[in-house]
Amino acid sequence: MSVFLVGRFCRQIVIHNSQIRNPFVLPLVQSFHLYTGRPSCVNPLVNSMIQQISVSEDFFFKQLFDRVSCTYSYLLADVKSKEAVLIDPVIDLAERDAKVVDNLGLKLKYSVNTHMHADHITGSGVLKKLLVGSQSVISKASQALADKYVEHGDIIEFGPHKLEVRSTPGHTNGCVTYVCHAQGMAFTGDALLIRGCGRTDFQEGSSETLYESVHNQIFSLPENFRLFPGHDYNGILDTTVSEEKKFNPRLTKCKEEFVELMKNLNLPYPAQIDKALPANKVCGLYNLPTEMEEKFKSILNV
Amino acid sequence: MSVFLVGRFCRQIVIHNSQIRNPFVLPLVQSFHLYTGRPSCVNPLVNSMIQQISVSEDFFFKQLFDRVSCTYSYLLADVKSKEAVLIDPVIDLAERDAKVVDNLGLKLKYSVNTHMHADHITGSGVLKKLLVGSQSVISKASQALADKYVEHGDIIEFGPHKLEVRSTPGHTNGCVTYVCHAQGMAFTGDALLIRGCGRTDFQEGSSETLYESVHNQIFSLPENFRLFPGHDYNGILDTTVSEEKKFNPRLTKCKEEFVELMKNLNLPYPAQIDKALPANKVCGLYNLPTEMEEKFKSILNV
Repeated sequence: MSVFLVGRFCRQIVIHNSQIRNPFVLPLVQSFHLYTGRPSCVNPLVNSMIQQISVSEDFFFKQLFDRVSCTYSYLLADVKSKEAVLIDPVIDLAERDAKVVDNLGLKLKYSVNTHMHADHITGSGVLKKLLVGSQSVISKASQALADKYVEHGDIIEFGPHKLEVRSTPGHTNGCVTYVCHAQGMAFTGDALLIRGCGRTDFQEGSSETLYESVHNQIFSLPENFRLFPGHDYNGILDTTVSEEKKFNPRLTKCKEEFVELMKNLNLPYPAQIDKALPANKVCGLYNLPTEMEEKFKSILNV
Repeated sequence: MSVFLVGRFCRQIVIHNSQIRNPFVLPLVQSFHLYTGRPSCVNPLVNSMIQQISVSEDFFFKQLFDRVSCTYSYLLADVKSKEAVLIDPVIDLAERDAKVVDNLGLKLKYSVNTHMHADHITGSGVLKKLLVGSQSVISKASQALADKYVEHGDIIEFGPHKLEVRSTPGHTNGCVTYVCHAQGMAFTGDALLIRGCGRTDFQEGSSETLYESVHNQIFSLPENFRLFPGHDYNGILDTTVSEEKKFNPRLTKCKEEFVELMKNLNLPYPAQIDKALPANKVCGLYNLPTEMEEKFKSILNV
């Protein structure tokens, strides 16, 4: 279903089929919390404190944190079948994550990466060994090796639950966002951070592309969808589409201003990139730095 | 309503009135996820991956983290009236918290402390100044100064939502746990941590008392209630009654073993206690260390 309106605050309003799967979302989408295209100013109709989306009783969710790289990982599971998916695990904490999965009696189906990280090594490789049967997943566009490749529009399933893959390049050219429409959640990796976004000055990054990705694929979700980023450095764990459309200091700008701002960030060369990329190109299974190879020797049989 | 049964795995089963307010909880309580008294071994009937409790659409919840002291703060709010409660704010992050509250259009009613902290200074005092109208709350038993004192059995209200105060001394003699029955959540402060518990070797701590508090006031909640601790040092954000009754390495022991274990922890003197306690005795309004006094001079008018 698509609805097109033109009005004071609306350039083009599109309700995707995917957005109306959740009955709790529909009334909001139908009333006034509609995506207003790509505003050059903040939409005054948006209220950042809006009706919450209830998570299903058969949907398990656990956010996890790495204090060193400030990375968030997300464990999602089906309560009945126990099938689980872990988004963006960190190698240093793979044993913690395996224990959490094990304690909860879950079966890890996929270790899913939002992109080929530059600031830490993915836990996918070690988790394949610790939780036998689990598979590593990454986007085809990332050009990294994995068990399973995803593309825009693909669906990842665990039990009756679904994650829609949305291509959101710009931080890297292989970045994807995973959207769980039924629970009103999206996992944005480094495309969109809380009141920020991933840098665009390496790994084929592009500010123009990132701006398009966030506006077309993330800000087009219902206002009250919760967004879970790849990192946060201020101890904030999640945000919403509404909050970011109102308060993100970068992405509320018009495209030209955003590109100019990103051009002038003058960030230092990423400290871990030379260690992280070779390992992440093979989803953390090989090419580990010496200290990691030593730590996980018995697990990886390297 | 109280139900008493005797069986292989049951010594005494009590269903409190308070536990049957949430219709989602009742089926579990009625079936096999019943509290089995104070086990000397783990109850084999408990399954740690159980039906989740859906949070109401009018209930807003946001967990926040302090990377320095590894403290969790919790912002709860009523979506309609915008009334909010912040559990265990940290002074260093009071400005962050005030901004979060402000961005969301909330009205902070109470800054609520689970106890008089020894490892950081509460944000209650600074928040009273940043968010005018908010009041500091702590237990009467803590003997700290605050705007409002709570005791076992009291109810804290924000909009239609309720937090029941449960006295859970042992880490300190003024520790309380705040229970939101309708949402299946409890905020345990340092009484119960994830796979651990607060130390009991200062501030009138008592291992015997802590053991009783956790077993009587927290483990007696329904199995699938989510527990939110005052800290976690491993990047894990929450747990459940079920998980802790099964996997907590300290509190699954019998009382005598627990007391013995706590006696032999040999922990160092808490690094921040001499700075934190004088300030926390007045809910973070006065008696601040020099650097804090300097930082918040203009806010506190000291």
